[in-house]
Amino acid sequence: MAKSSLNIDEVESLCAEPDPSTRDYISHHTMLLIKDPKKTLDFYTRILGMRLLFGVDLPAISTSTFFMGFAKAEDIPKDKAKTIEWASKKPGCIEFRYEYGTDTDESFKGYHNGESDPRGFGHIAVCVPNIDDACKRLEELGVEFAENPKQGKMSGPAYIKDPDGYWIEICSGKKYREDLTGII
Amino acid sequence: MAKSSLNIDEVESLCAEPDPSTRDYISHHTMLLIKDPKKTLDFYTRILGMRLLFGVDLPAISTSTFFMGFAKAEDIPKDKAKTIEWASKKPGCIEFRYEYGTDTDESFKGYHNGESDPRGFGHIAVCVPNIDDACKRLEELGVEFAENPKQGKMSGPAYIKDPDGYWIEICSGKKYREDLTGII
Repeated sequence: MAKSSLNIDEVESLCAEPDPSTRDYISHHTMLLIKDPKKTLDFYTRILGMRLLFGVDLPAISTSTFFMGFAKAEDIPKDKAKTIEWASKKPGCIEFRYEYGTDTDESFKGYHNGESDPRGFGHIAVCVPNIDDACKRLEELGVEFAENPKQGKMSGPAYIKDPDGYWIEICSGKKYREDLTGII
Repeated sequence: MAKSSLNIDEVESLCAEPDPSTRDYISHHTMLLIKDPKKTLDFYTRILGMRLLFGVDLPAISTSTFFMGFAKAEDIPKDKAKTIEWASKKPGCIEFRYEYGTDTDESFKGYHNGESDPRGFGHIAVCVPNIDDACKRLEELGVEFAENPKQGKMSGPAYIKDPDGYWIEICSGKKYREDLTGII
């Protein structure tokens, strides 16, 4: 069995104090390639509750890209330039990038979701107020579950699959708050 | 040359109004597997300016996991349970997951960064106030660039590599605000 080379008590000492110049940095987005924007836009709005913040069509590189995130309609500026200004300060967006033609190319096998070899990227995660309520609705909508809270290796979060097979963790902070064992 | 099957004018009609039950959902984190937490913790704090929000050591599954993000020190609660409550409401965190032993296993070749086949996950992105200033500092710190603004296919953002080879886009909203061509 593999051993950790990490002394948990030393973890804090491995972290440096951030440089003042990074003070206004924002963890802005994660980019995922998608096969079919029609399916992705439907899934992430209707099923998951995100909104399209803005998109960019780039015919020169045969690509369209869509920035999505959770936002209240009333918070999104009506003017496109202001929307982009606002969206560029919004952490946790997802950029879905479509390379023209993958949706109609029958020879295209789809993208690698990271859950099989070669591994690296694992999943994105949505924190919800109540996992049980969220999962009940997702089940009713016919969403495919990769792991449900009672079957996974770790109790608590559920994992669903998006139209490209990417895993989305449905989590809440509750599990870790209730059991601080192992918390660093 | 591939064609887009998407009528840009119809993109909005492909998006549904979010269900009210999703109102408080948060785009919380992206999970990436890492080979060596010592290198990752150093890189994301000292170089990039993130902080370790909390970590969890899970010996039962030989895993430690680290939730990191941009945060002001004064905003992080001192009490661990409160930190988790706070961190679970913070969008755009990155979860770095370490499976015991990868850092000392000479046969372990590292993780797949998504920039070669099979593709899917592309990169994470940090929005900064000024790309030039940020890149100058990153160059001085000896960070490896995957693409710099003058060499990339798209003008504007830079891409750097983290210790596992994952690409990090260094972006700002400025480019898209200044040129609204193709904006959806």
